[in-house]
Amino acid sequence: MAAALESLESCLERHIPPGELAEVKRILYGGEARKLDLPTAALSAAQEKGFELQGYGFGAALEQLRRPRIVRVGLIQNEIPLPTDTAVAVQVAALHRRIEEIVGVAAMCGVNIVCFQEAWTMPFAFCTREKLPWTEFAESAEDGPTTKFCQELAKKCNMVVVSPILERDELHGGILWNTAVVISNSGALLGKSRKNHIPRVGDFNESTYYMEGNTGHPVFQTQFGTIAVNICYGRHHPLNWLMYSINGAEIIFNPSATIGALSEALWPIEARNAAIANHCFTCPINRVGTVPHHELGHFYGSSYVAAPDGSRTPGLSRTQDGLLVAEMDLNLCRQVSDKWNFKMTGRYEMYAEKLAEAVQPFFIPNIIKE
Amino acid sequence: MAAALESLESCLERHIPPGELAEVKRILYGGEARKLDLPTAALSAAQEKGFELQGYGFGAALEQLRRPRIVRVGLIQNEIPLPTDTAVAVQVAALHRRIEEIVGVAAMCGVNIVCFQEAWTMPFAFCTREKLPWTEFAESAEDGPTTKFCQELAKKCNMVVVSPILERDELHGGILWNTAVVISNSGALLGKSRKNHIPRVGDFNESTYYMEGNTGHPVFQTQFGTIAVNICYGRHHPLNWLMYSINGAEIIFNPSATIGALSEALWPIEARNAAIANHCFTCPINRVGTVPHHELGHFYGSSYVAAPDGSRTPGLSRTQDGLLVAEMDLNLCRQVSDKWNFKMTGRYEMYAEKLAEAVQPFFIPNIIKE
Repeated sequence: MAAALESLESCLERHIPPGELAEVKRILYGGEARKLDLPTAALSAAQEKGFELQGYGFGAALEQLRRPRIVRVGLIQNEIPLPTDTAVAVQVAALHRRIEEIVGVAAMCGVNIVCFQEAWTMPFAFCTREKLPWTEFAESAEDGPTTKFCQELAKKCNMVVVSPILERDELHGGILWNTAVVISNSGALLGKSRKNHIPRVGDFNESTYYMEGNTGHPVFQTQFGTIAVNICYGRHHPLNWLMYSINGAEIIFNPSATIGALSEALWPIEARNAAIANHCFTCPINRVGTVPHHELGHFYGSSYVAAPDGSRTPGLSRTQDGLLVAEMDLNLCRQVSDKWNFKMTGRYEMYAEKLAEAVQPFFIPNIIKE
Repeated sequence: MAAALESLESCLERHIPPGELAEVKRILYGGEARKLDLPTAALSAAQEKGFELQGYGFGAALEQLRRPRIVRVGLIQNEIPLPTDTAVAVQVAALHRRIEEIVGVAAMCGVNIVCFQEAWTMPFAFCTREKLPWTEFAESAEDGPTTKFCQELAKKCNMVVVSPILERDELHGGILWNTAVVISNSGALLGKSRKNHIPRVGDFNESTYYMEGNTGHPVFQTQFGTIAVNICYGRHHPLNWLMYSINGAEIIFNPSATIGALSEALWPIEARNAAIANHCFTCPINRVGTVPHHELGHFYGSSYVAAPDGSRTPGLSRTQDGLLVAEMDLNLCRQVSDKWNFKMTGRYEMYAEKLAEAVQPFFIPNIIKE
């Protein structure tokens, strides 16, 4: 039932007359997103391979001392292509092939940085509480087969690759982490960034598998801009976005796996608020399809890009594999920051003190009574 | 032009067929808000006095040990009734009369806590940079005529009153503050809460008039629930909302004055994100009408209430005076908190440390390069 609406935006397009639609889009999305003119070959390849391809652009004012810093990011959302009882290695290989296919089209569209969905090499099974076979999908972030696969891809396509996987950390007793591996367009491993906040929500208690990340809030300075990765549930924590931004992130990816009944009303709000509050671009990605033998419903896709000025692209489909290409001039971040001044007016000293007080076991809140 | 669309929601209602409309509302607003059955006498009084009256309700699950804590809040948005070159005292008196009229209807609707818009006793003139006559609208928070007026009103209507004014602080050299005065339903002055973050955005550089507040993040424990007031530009600062919430606020009002060209795409996002992130209700209020002899355009109203589960009411009109009545069971706050656990998973110790580091002049950000 809930899956019936292919996307909010196409529904609005279909029913609202053009004059009012422009106003609706201005109020809802900060204006009409500029459509990118994507290569015909890419559009037909996407159609042939059965995934949606959309492209939108964000501009910025021309400056005198900085050239425009135009970058194209690609967000990929996908179903798992094989049944979850297929052999692990076969499932991983099929996912590698599917992503290779989509990244090929991203390369045709001039994408410079691509990000895949959370734990992209596996079914999102962390609500089952079962260990085998799911933990067999875990890999070394540094030299696992998926990292090697991504390094090849990055080099071949001259593309920065953000690859969120289930990490097996042999250095520390073989424990698991939920980790994004970041690979330079040279093919070099840049580093990794672990999920900072772990959900304990109903069946989605992922602390059965891994704990809060210990890599802090690293940002990765790439040839195409400074990026960070806020994995899934970290989306709900404004301070998590803030620290990536304070470290210098201009684009924050948010690879996710979240289902309709739980979070769909939150989805358009949180990452977009983070783009506004932190004067940066945010890129929430959600998978499509279902959870392994679980009644929870389906992942609702709807990946989108939000800009620092509060505008955003429409979302990808709620039900279909897709590639969203967003072109952005990163100069917009500082331009919006200089206009709104949230960092300058943020009073972080005060909050550092207040938070330090607030976490004390015998903290006395500031309550005024009659 | 931009003023032509009376409200986003009525436009959607008019054009989208019922089946799809329900899905659109679920995705946009977390579901269809329950309409309140308001008294006929209140509806006709509102019509007669020329303001919009809307009522919506938020429920919560029944608990065994706590009764439902049902409270009705009223949000009032209004134009200034007289030309801005009318004598100051006459303008103030007209505003008192207008608000008395609307609060009378709120009382008929069973409102327990009412909040007015930012600097409600005056034209919002802080973009003019002129001092007289605007600074003559400033009053003592403790015993100015507006506070006395609100104390009468509170007592008569058995209503908590949140009265955001321009404050003249005689205790400290007669300086100005942007302050919300909070009055108990007994008529007693509970206290005041000053605007924590001051805009310096184009002509809206309000630091010409007043500085960042020094009252911290007080919350007011009233008979009807624990409330706080985050004034206007503080809406853009997630940490500001957070501290009110950490101190125990279940409802955070956000009296504002903001214009279409500047912020309309941010308006539906920020306060709603705060409700989600902090497991509380938020009540953003924006005035309608225009800025005194200024080309900046009009205040776009659109006051609404957002709930901790991510749902929200439709907005009031973009152009008309209005009263929004929202009934809420405050038990929803803890229920959503127990479900999503953002406070439990917030890692505030880490952020207190990181923020303290980040504000150091020679802070070294966590940047990873090839």
